[in-house]
Amino acid sequence: MLDVEVALAAAQADAGLIPQAAAHAIADAARASSFDVAEIVSAGWEVGTPVLPLIDRLRALVGSPHSEHVHHGTTTQDIVDTATVLQIRAGLMGLEERWARMGDVLARLAQRHRATPMLGRSFLQAGGTISFGRKVAGWLGSVAGDISRLHEEAAALPLQLGGPLGVLDGYGDHGVAVVTGVAERLDLTIPAVSWHSDRRPIRATAGALADVAATVRNVATDTILLAQTGIEEVSVRPGRSSSVANKQNPIDAIRANAAAQFAVAQTAALLALGPHEHERAIGAWHAEWALVPTAFHGAMAAAEAIERSIASLEVHEERMLANLTAAGYEPSPSSMDSRLIDRAVDAFGRAKR
Amino acid sequence: MLDVEVALAAAQADAGLIPQAAAHAIADAARASSFDVAEIVSAGWEVGTPVLPLIDRLRALVGSPHSEHVHHGTTTQDIVDTATVLQIRAGLMGLEERWARMGDVLARLAQRHRATPMLGRSFLQAGGTISFGRKVAGWLGSVAGDISRLHEEAAALPLQLGGPLGVLDGYGDHGVAVVTGVAERLDLTIPAVSWHSDRRPIRATAGALADVAATVRNVATDTILLAQTGIEEVSVRPGRSSSVANKQNPIDAIRANAAAQFAVAQTAALLALGPHEHERAIGAWHAEWALVPTAFHGAMAAAEAIERSIASLEVHEERMLANLTAAGYEPSPSSMDSRLIDRAVDAFGRAKR
Amino acid sequence: MLDVEVALAAAQADAGLIPQAAAHAIADAARASSFDVAEIVSAGWEVGTPVLPLIDRLRALVGSPHSEHVHHGTTTQDIVDTATVLQIRAGLMGLEERWARMGDVLARLAQRHRATPMLGRSFLQAGGTISFGRKVAGWLGSVAGDISRLHEEAAALPLQLGGPLGVLDGYGDHGVAVVTGVAERLDLTIPAVSWHSDRRPIRATAGALADVAATVRNVATDTILLAQTGIEEVSVRPGRSSSVANKQNPIDAIRANAAAQFAVAQTAALLALGPHEHERAIGAWHAEWALVPTAFHGAMAAAEAIERSIASLEVHEERMLANLTAAGYEPSPSSMDSRLIDRAVDAFGRAKR
Amino acid sequence: MLDVEVALAAAQADAGLIPQAAAHAIADAARASSFDVAEIVSAGWEVGTPVLPLIDRLRALVGSPHSEHVHHGTTTQDIVDTATVLQIRAGLMGLEERWARMGDVLARLAQRHRATPMLGRSFLQAGGTISFGRKVAGWLGSVAGDISRLHEEAAALPLQLGGPLGVLDGYGDHGVAVVTGVAERLDLTIPAVSWHSDRRPIRATAGALADVAATVRNVATDTILLAQTGIEEVSVRPGRSSSVANKQNPIDAIRANAAAQFAVAQTAALLALGPHEHERAIGAWHAEWALVPTAFHGAMAAAEAIERSIASLEVHEERMLANLTAAGYEPSPSSMDSRLIDRAVDAFGRAKR
Repeated sequence: MLDVEVALAAAQADAGLIPQAAAHAIADAARASSFDVAEIVSAGWEVGTPVLPLIDRLRALVGSPHSEHVHHGTTTQDIVDTATVLQIRAGLMGLEERWARMGDVLARLAQRHRATPMLGRSFLQAGGTISFGRKVAGWLGSVAGDISRLHEEAAALPLQLGGPLGVLDGYGDHGVAVVTGVAERLDLTIPAVSWHSDRRPIRATAGALADVAATVRNVATDTILLAQTGIEEVSVRPGRSSSVANKQNPIDAIRANAAAQFAVAQTAALLALGPHEHERAIGAWHAEWALVPTAFHGAMAAAEAIERSIASLEVHEERMLANLTAAGYEPSPSSMDSRLIDRAVDAFGRAKR
Repeated sequence: MLDVEVALAAAQADAGLIPQAAAHAIADAARASSFDVAEIVSAGWEVGTPVLPLIDRLRALVGSPHSEHVHHGTTTQDIVDTATVLQIRAGLMGLEERWARMGDVLARLAQRHRATPMLGRSFLQAGGTISFGRKVAGWLGSVAGDISRLHEEAAALPLQLGGPLGVLDGYGDHGVAVVTGVAERLDLTIPAVSWHSDRRPIRATAGALADVAATVRNVATDTILLAQTGIEEVSVRPGRSSSVANKQNPIDAIRANAAAQFAVAQTAALLALGPHEHERAIGAWHAEWALVPTAFHGAMAAAEAIERSIASLEVHEERMLANLTAAGYEPSPSSMDSRLIDRAVDAFGRAKR
Repeated sequence: MLDVEVALAAAQADAGLIPQAAAHAIADAARASSFDVAEIVSAGWEVGTPVLPLIDRLRALVGSPHSEHVHHGTTTQDIVDTATVLQIRAGLMGLEERWARMGDVLARLAQRHRATPMLGRSFLQAGGTISFGRKVAGWLGSVAGDISRLHEEAAALPLQLGGPLGVLDGYGDHGVAVVTGVAERLDLTIPAVSWHSDRRPIRATAGALADVAATVRNVATDTILLAQTGIEEVSVRPGRSSSVANKQNPIDAIRANAAAQFAVAQTAALLALGPHEHERAIGAWHAEWALVPTAFHGAMAAAEAIERSIASLEVHEERMLANLTAAGYEPSPSSMDSRLIDRAVDAFGRAKR
Repeated sequence: MLDVEVALAAAQADAGLIPQAAAHAIADAARASSFDVAEIVSAGWEVGTPVLPLIDRLRALVGSPHSEHVHHGTTTQDIVDTATVLQIRAGLMGLEERWARMGDVLARLAQRHRATPMLGRSFLQAGGTISFGRKVAGWLGSVAGDISRLHEEAAALPLQLGGPLGVLDGYGDHGVAVVTGVAERLDLTIPAVSWHSDRRPIRATAGALADVAATVRNVATDTILLAQTGIEEVSVRPGRSSSVANKQNPIDAIRANAAAQFAVAQTAALLALGPHEHERAIGAWHAEWALVPTAFHGAMAAAEAIERSIASLEVHEERMLANLTAAGYEPSPSSMDSRLIDRAVDAFGRAKR
């Protein structure tokens, strides 16, 4: 939120709306370390928004004569939404980085097991021969798709700056200049219309997180199914059991699965929120304040856990072969198999850039 | 599904996998009027997929010697998913067309009321003066955003063609040629990896429908709030009450609101489905067969109802003015207001193409 | 809806509000066969409620002089909600009956396999020895719990009768007599306050259906996991594959799983609807008209499919033993196992009444 | 979790399974202040369950010779589920207490405004005359219904105690005695079958929280609608605006509305989780660890905020009268109105006990 106030003041100074000295004073004062977060949250609770105690404190720090230029012509929702978008971007990029690492691991795994035959299973019934590399390529393709989506949504995130009614009426004829200046400073896009009541950036974020969560659920479930007693084609770092010695609980994949289920619930909720009444909503907007963080917590915990699970993955080729043979299939994956691995590795390379 | 089988046969014939005569025979036989849908659904219920009775019937119609070339090297999921994608495209394009009409109405309305002052309301509390045109421009911006999204998702819809294990092993070295041929014939994109277990195209569709539904909820709710007794700034075609004479129930907006809530529930469910185990899911895939139609039913009913509501909208300028004045505001919208209307109209024009 | 109008007229006649002859004339006229459902739905769409064309037609059938007594002092929501409750009761009782049959099958299965040792699996890892009867007893316990819940919710379903504002003001001092008379005739409970805006009966219904769906998902998933290639401890009626001969797709369990996922989405949506503004909602109420049917469709399809799956279940005791031994466990279930089977069978017997 | 281990040891001592001295030593050692929660969470993260580091620490505190009797014959899920149930009970009872206070306020408000006429609104259109007391009675009826449900679900919460496979095989013939002893000590019910894989107690909790959240949404929305500019029949404690002076944002009701939307999303997610595979789930169980807390956080925040909003409510009778008259209705509520207020107050009194 401080970053937004600083960018706003700078753009207003460039547009001649406030003195440059005021913009500098605001930038100097707006250090997170000068603010007591717990106090701001608590005071914000009373008045209904954390922005008020934040700018009260910022004004006190800026002091006379520039304090009046803090938060000029803007509104709580501008600051909260733009700050949310900055945090969303950091979150999406963090996931993108993790997924780039995960993809590297999966790409190596797919290529290493290009010729490792295993049973292909549809409806959990034997359906033919694939390579383990091909299965991993499916996971990799999902990771690649997620990276593209994360990147795209991060790049499309829009500035929110419309003033109390979303009509950008606080800056006279300088509205466009201020918007442009803030957007450039924060590296955000400029929406055609303010999105005070149109929450598609939030839903697009939810969609990207739902994609990540779906990938995690698939990889986690496949891993647990392959590691299950009686199949045992892979093993992963085991958790400990409080009651059964030597039990090989695939605990990271289980945690990933759980966190992903938690995450999809949050993202689904973000899609179902609403409506946003007139120029500001009577509940759906504030509900995002809780759901965006829980959605990220879920998706990030899921990604972290599955990355750890995959990092510990051991492949039991002989068991794959035995299960395949027992099901009556030949250990000869299709030649297409290997080409599809290459396609997935290429798609990942392009997505990763 | 017949369109998919026909395109597949044609592409296979071009690749030399089956005789051209077989492809022609299949195309000739694959007329929907020759198939009893109820019978296929009922028989499909028994065996678990409608594709089997469909191709049994198609083979019977094709007859000797070409019947063996029907459904060559493919699998139920290829046919069902690609057919679903074709239906999704038709649905998305239908919504896009309706939204283009809706946007035309809104654009005219916004421009006509460029200088009609009304109360801006945040948290349903007076927050200043806007024009009614500006409010409509907000709705229009949402419609424009939806059109772009609908168009984008329709254009990105991928072919599904991988055979039973998604590895495209049914066509020897001709896999790529067959895929390319089918994709061109059906005007679908080619995914890097088959999406048998990676349902992002379905989630992307859900996201587009959720956007439409959110727009409907906002427009419907705003309309109902403006039409409410005591505010009465607009009126719309009334329904009839079974108990209170002359009650002005804004029934189209209410239906729109209800259908949109139904739709968002379906789209949220599509985001939360899963996982897809190994090479084919043990439930989440079949669940799409019900949720994709219900999601479209909801979104389409919502769009139809709100279009009707808006078509009947009457604006009571004098009442807008009276409410504004009573709240202590001047009837002078910001000059930015009019520029934002132009921006929204432009954005809609670009989206509509 | 006709049943509600008839019961209302009869209670009003008993209270002296309308002539007994009018109540008889209404009862005589209110035969479903005299009404064109499609026409009523279509006309209802125009005016926003099917009740209006229904009572127009009913009045025409009743004719002079009694037609004026049709729908006296009531409102659309009274008729729709009470009719919905009657349909919900029929649906809940239908599920209860199916579950009673399902429980009988499971009880026999549990008792027959009281001493059939198999691997207990937690996190899909070997965790010790249980009997197959004990596993089935877990399913049976769920079915018993569902039956109790279905029964309880069906018995608690309340009459809706409050007139347009829910204050029961259409009957002078006879309000209580009319409510009591209608409730007795329809065998419904009388709520303390009208539930026009308080939808807990609908949510309670959703909760009962969610319980059924959860039971189905567990039984279906367990079945599919036990039937999977490489485990093969049970088999069920196979579907056919369009691409792989002799594949044993456990299609009924898969359909059950899918329908149950569809059902839980609908029930979750019913929990999340809202709010109901003032004396009648501007959307959430109409959304129930779609979600209650889809929730029942899902739950009923799920129950039907899993019943069929279980009816076809074959138990492979030797394979259970082999898998158990391979995992290093002794084929000796705990003595508690058998007692727990008895407890589950008893619980089911009590629930079934 | 410590409470559960202590109760378990005590019951086992009574059954003669472990020495009474061991049970006493365990009770002495199991003081929360001796445990570092952060350390346990962190170590639990590694092994997949907080129970392991907890009992490691507990064993260390108990020391020789009794440490071996800690956690005897039980499993992680027994401890976690029973501890969860204890926390759920505390949460449900906390809500019940808050709702009892809220109901007292509403009962007084309803009675005070027994004869305060206002407009009844259906679809936000004028529908006749009610009293404000009657509207409040509707809210009170919902609160009464919630209290009954909270109480009922709290009283029905079951012990979880089955050992690793849910078959209660860790206690020889003493299983029933141990279960009974623990249930009595913790005042929990004894389920017919262990609910390791049957999560109806969790869903029942979710249902009760969803009821509370629905009540909050109705009260909050009605309050905001009544307080809206142009209607102004009530006012509540205002928040502050960062941009518009003297704006009367009904911030507590808005927060309540937001928290309630957050809560219903969590409860809907709890209904939709699943399945629970075999004897312990591969993800759905761990997902509850996050969703049960978020569901309670949401419901409790919603209840706290709406209680505060209602506590600050001022009723503007003259405005109610003016709006009613302007809509063409007489200021004479039905005589039934007052009787319905009495019914709601009675229902609340009975629910509160």
